[in-house]
Amino acid sequence: MQRLAKDTGTLVCTFALLIGAAGCATTQHHSLPSWNDGPTKSAITDFVQRVTTEGTADFVPSAERIAVFDNDGTLWSEQPMYFQLAFAVDRVKALAPEHPEWKDKEPFKSVLAGDVESALAGGEHAILELVMASHAGNTTEEFAESVGDWIATAKHPKSSRPYTEMVYQPMLELLDYLRANGFKTFIVSGGGVEFMRVFAEEVYGIPPEQVIGSSIKTEFEMRSTGPVIKRLPEIDFIDDKAGKPIGINKFIGRRPIAAFGNSDGDLQMLQWTAAGEGPRFCLYVHHTDAKREWAYDRESHIGKLDKGLDEAHGRGWTVVDMQRDWSVIYPLQARDK
Amino acid sequence: MQRLAKDTGTLVCTFALLIGAAGCATTQHHSLPSWNDGPTKSAITDFVQRVTTEGTADFVPSAERIAVFDNDGTLWSEQPMYFQLAFAVDRVKALAPEHPEWKDKEPFKSVLAGDVESALAGGEHAILELVMASHAGNTTEEFAESVGDWIATAKHPKSSRPYTEMVYQPMLELLDYLRANGFKTFIVSGGGVEFMRVFAEEVYGIPPEQVIGSSIKTEFEMRSTGPVIKRLPEIDFIDDKAGKPIGINKFIGRRPIAAFGNSDGDLQMLQWTAAGEGPRFCLYVHHTDAKREWAYDRESHIGKLDKGLDEAHGRGWTVVDMQRDWSVIYPLQARDK
Repeated sequence: MQRLAKDTGTLVCTFALLIGAAGCATTQHHSLPSWNDGPTKSAITDFVQRVTTEGTADFVPSAERIAVFDNDGTLWSEQPMYFQLAFAVDRVKALAPEHPEWKDKEPFKSVLAGDVESALAGGEHAILELVMASHAGNTTEEFAESVGDWIATAKHPKSSRPYTEMVYQPMLELLDYLRANGFKTFIVSGGGVEFMRVFAEEVYGIPPEQVIGSSIKTEFEMRSTGPVIKRLPEIDFIDDKAGKPIGINKFIGRRPIAAFGNSDGDLQMLQWTAAGEGPRFCLYVHHTDAKREWAYDRESHIGKLDKGLDEAHGRGWTVVDMQRDWSVIYPLQARDK
Repeated sequence: MQRLAKDTGTLVCTFALLIGAAGCATTQHHSLPSWNDGPTKSAITDFVQRVTTEGTADFVPSAERIAVFDNDGTLWSEQPMYFQLAFAVDRVKALAPEHPEWKDKEPFKSVLAGDVESALAGGEHAILELVMASHAGNTTEEFAESVGDWIATAKHPKSSRPYTEMVYQPMLELLDYLRANGFKTFIVSGGGVEFMRVFAEEVYGIPPEQVIGSSIKTEFEMRSTGPVIKRLPEIDFIDDKAGKPIGINKFIGRRPIAAFGNSDGDLQMLQWTAAGEGPRFCLYVHHTDAKREWAYDRESHIGKLDKGLDEAHGRGWTVVDMQRDWSVIYPLQARDK
């Protein structure tokens, strides 16, 4: 019924525009049912109203309503480890017989010994190397199939639910709300682009061409059975920190007017977004809910939010207090309400 | 009025879908007035009808209707030299005082001596080096401004018209026709991505995020006045030949169902498109009109079409004979009709 209501709203507006009626441009579609009333929700809806109200100085044409979202910790959980890392661990274990050299080489050695924490201690570059190395050596289609198989069957260690059920219901509503108001929504994540593209459309409503992420190099090869694209064990682009505005410029080519993140890795993306002319919206998701999700910020190895939190407070960016602002965390809880 | 007619068509279809009426899914919007009736035009409209008719085996959901277009020689002319090269020549001349080393270094030396032909003899890599080197050393915003200034004032040496008037009217109609039928249109060009993005939205109706091209490396820098992205004199990606399917996979992440090109540089893009499952459409624009445009193919230094023409004939791809299939070439001629 939600889908029908949306279509009807669009129809009414289209019709109103055709017959020259005014008012529809300021109509805000959808609500944000899992967002508690308060300053955070108001900041979002006020911004959307400003940029969608025609005839005002703050009006932004639909084509320029670009909104960028980090993924890990912003659209879905990232504890006790990045979900893609869980996929990488499972892949490394499965592929280990073909790679005897991994036994003596970190971070593979630790992973195979079941000690993911030590592998994590190698820092983000080591994590990405592990992820990329475990993801290479096949074709793009083979890789997508392996991700699809994993995401359909793997379970999160805490919730015992599929990883795709650990997405944030309020953020799904926010994505939908922005799109209904003429925004184009993009993922801009440090995660692997070909990993996320497998499920982003179904889970977030974001098509592959609007997913930006880290990548490994690829190679076109004409085989007797036809062309394939091979995934090479070499990092091409790391879409994190200063890489995020670089990636936005490279893939979108237009500065976003709204940016959503949760960690210091998103800071440059928010800075780049905020530095444009006209109305801008920057939001940090602050993980404050140890009971329903996790609570972490300045000292966390995953999703560290330290400089970003200071800058957000200093510049008046919107900060989501998950415990206070979200009535539910996951879609399953929304269905149970 | 064309815009209104389009909106009305969409409205009627939306309304029909809401009340459960059938038939709209097979309605084809727009026509192709500058395409002469015949097998080429029929091949296009037949394909679009097949993939947009719901309930058939060939139906393709709108999200998967990805169409990719080469730019130079496919959407606009490329003779007597790539238009971006004309921009590069003008830029090199303007920047030469700041680069004394260019006097002794090819291909700059030839360009400054007014001998663009010798510079061209250095091959595509030399051309790209010239283009990229002449495009670097500033910020993304400064570069976009310089392109915008140039494109608004520069004139083509043969027509004495702005370069943006040397786009192909039939291809503008084709872009519009495909979009009206639920396709998402992308440029996939060997040209510089940040060059094309400046005018692609206004000229082709293709927003920056749907323009894929060659690029140089960039760097994020926080200045006292705010963040900038600096353009570095180093090639990042060449979106030509095997680079085209690589670029498609990198930027779109979904295989196109239709591909349009005019040279051997587009062959791998067409092969990659053709190799997918389900209905596929591959088209080459063959430059056969020496009177109204240019006639060239197998022996041309620019836009060489040799292997591609053989493969198109062998595989039954659609080949546009510009002289036979297009009633006008440029928008100005369409307006004069």
